[in-house]
Amino acid sequence: MGNSRFDLGLERLASIDGEAGYKVIESLQDICPDLAKFTIEYPFGDIYSRPGLDLKSREIATVAALTALGHCRPQLKVHLNAALNAGCSEEQVKEVLLQMSVYTGFPAALNGMFALKEVLLERQVE
Amino acid sequence: MGNSRFDLGLERLASIDGEAGYKVIESLQDICPDLAKFTIEYPFGDIYSRPGLDLKSREIATVAALTALGHCRPQLKVHLNAALNAGCSEEQVKEVLLQMSVYTGFPAALNGMFALKEVLLERQVE
Amino acid sequence: MGNSRFDLGLERLASIDGEAGYKVIESLQDICPDLAKFTIEYPFGDIYSRPGLDLKSREIATVAALTALGHCRPQLKVHLNAALNAGCSEEQVKEVLLQMSVYTGFPAALNGMFALKEVLLERQVE
Amino acid sequence: MGNSRFDLGLERLASIDGEAGYKVIESLQDICPDLAKFTIEYPFGDIYSRPGLDLKSREIATVAALTALGHCRPQLKVHLNAALNAGCSEEQVKEVLLQMSVYTGFPAALNGMFALKEVLLERQVE
Amino acid sequence: MGNSRFDLGLERLASIDGEAGYKVIESLQDICPDLAKFTIEYPFGDIYSRPGLDLKSREIATVAALTALGHCRPQLKVHLNAALNAGCSEEQVKEVLLQMSVYTGFPAALNGMFALKEVLLERQVE
Amino acid sequence: MGNSRFDLGLERLASIDGEAGYKVIESLQDICPDLAKFTIEYPFGDIYSRPGLDLKSREIATVAALTALGHCRPQLKVHLNAALNAGCSEEQVKEVLLQMSVYTGFPAALNGMFALKEVLLERQVE
Repeated sequence: MGNSRFDLGLERLASIDGEAGYKVIESLQDICPDLAKFTIEYPFGDIYSRPGLDLKSREIATVAALTALGHCRPQLKVHLNAALNAGCSEEQVKEVLLQMSVYTGFPAALNGMFALKEVLLERQVE
Repeated sequence: MGNSRFDLGLERLASIDGEAGYKVIESLQDICPDLAKFTIEYPFGDIYSRPGLDLKSREIATVAALTALGHCRPQLKVHLNAALNAGCSEEQVKEVLLQMSVYTGFPAALNGMFALKEVLLERQVE
Repeated sequence: MGNSRFDLGLERLASIDGEAGYKVIESLQDICPDLAKFTIEYPFGDIYSRPGLDLKSREIATVAALTALGHCRPQLKVHLNAALNAGCSEEQVKEVLLQMSVYTGFPAALNGMFALKEVLLERQVE
Repeated sequence: MGNSRFDLGLERLASIDGEAGYKVIESLQDICPDLAKFTIEYPFGDIYSRPGLDLKSREIATVAALTALGHCRPQLKVHLNAALNAGCSEEQVKEVLLQMSVYTGFPAALNGMFALKEVLLERQVE
Repeated sequence: MGNSRFDLGLERLASIDGEAGYKVIESLQDICPDLAKFTIEYPFGDIYSRPGLDLKSREIATVAALTALGHCRPQLKVHLNAALNAGCSEEQVKEVLLQMSVYTGFPAALNGMFALKEVLLERQVE
Repeated sequence: MGNSRFDLGLERLASIDGEAGYKVIESLQDICPDLAKFTIEYPFGDIYSRPGLDLKSREIATVAALTALGHCRPQLKVHLNAALNAGCSEEQVKEVLLQMSVYTGFPAALNGMFALKEVLLERQVE
């Protein structure tokens, strides 16, 4: 029998983050495969696979938290994509970022919005 | 004609934060009434009154952001209440806090969960 | 009658941030014009247009806060420029950044000083 | 010859923070006197004793930075006092805190304003 | 066969944090037992049970990180205790906190030192 | 007689950070030589020259704190190098970064690990 947390996590990662998620995992293989394993198992196998909150709401929470932290631009971009993939409309994602001006200040909200601009452009190209 | 942003904001503040919102506004009157005015006008009159994102999703985003910041416990408690008032179930709010362990670490998630514990106790008493 | 907060804010933005401010506003037009509108109305129309604190002191406060946040380099550069435009001497701006070593640690102070180095170079070229 | 950085720092600490500064230094004596010594020598002996920026501007920068950090309430209260002692009017200090709503969000600005409310009350009692 | 990550984690939690760790876990039971379970499994079962870094070094890293975050005082106190239990001398723990003045500023270092003062007092009483 | 804090600090800087440390100091000369002087005197002359904690432990604390802050990538890279130079094994440094996932979240831990990947590559080239 396999490691069900890992298998479940890998499946969730693929369905939520798609290509971008795989790239993060791959780029960890030569430096710290255990961090890749833990990233699959805990966030995706344990947390994102829980019932009790729909994926759209989960991604809204993550986008808000990463905008608040301010120093995690690559992860913010991954989750702006994930929010759109989960069924959030562009308008809904913009509202989350707009609202962050209230809680984390205008600079963090602006930086979040410019990250979204890049994400939307990249999605158009693909 | 009155200041419609202020009137709209006050109405939104009352319906979202209830008593707790009023208390914050009142406690500002003798120190800086303009901050009270701005808090009503911008966050509530301009942002929380926008269509494009339902109130439940807005409160999920706010709870996530305040948990990430970590140093805004009074505001986190106000918005844990607001999330419940907006129709989030206890389970949904707990899922948001649980998920924050992934993005902001376990201590911030634990502190958020203990704030929720207090909020639920206070709501039972009332 | 026009929106006086917007008009006032636009005038303040132009006089404080100059070209750099306009660029931020312009680059928001195709992604979220409402964030541009709010950025003009609240920070510039409501706050920077208030009497009670001179512009030099306002820019000193903003440079200090953005250095403390650490993750808002583009905005820090805009406000290092704005501080110099408001009449702060180079020496005064350097003192603010030096002083941040005490409150936010040496790395944040060093990163602020290197941002100022870039700003001074860019101003020489123009 | 004595340690001039220490002597100079102690004199600056006394004139800037007064009683509150001494209390911090005293309360370190039984746990880590070297941290007391360093706090006198570097922030006060090296930085606050520099020419090039007036004390009022220095305190405005410090109040802004500590409001942005959000997790240093005791130090924020010391420096709200220091700002008032350095000649900032109540109005000027309030403007700095109001302005922080733009850069660090409304919760941090509100918490700063409530800290000022306490400081003003404590000064009235004394 | 039991859940070995949980069992291993519980054993590590007990040996590292002792009574204080149990209290955190217990106080989660009525609000979110899954967060208790995850706190045991991931930090303690997965991370603190790894070879490759001795426990003293792990606690030094944790004390440094929690001092830098600044808003996790209860967890900082737990890990100041854990560092001492793991064999760090009082002097070594003080050096870590002193050194934080360089990276996270003097206020965070001072608050860390005052947390240690409380911890040492509480250990004397017991 | 020379300034012994400066001389001692310069010697410590050279032995800890090597080339990378000199570069930081050099790049400050044309913008703010006093910040260079203070960076040598306080962090290196006063703190890193203290007995009471071995250099390996000091670097572990610094790597943890800079990973937690999240917005100090250049300094994190300098100290990942310094940790390796001080005798930490690659495995030990990876364990510190892995452990940060618990306290500062997975994004900060991932960004720290990717910084280490760059550092190891750069060391191979040299």
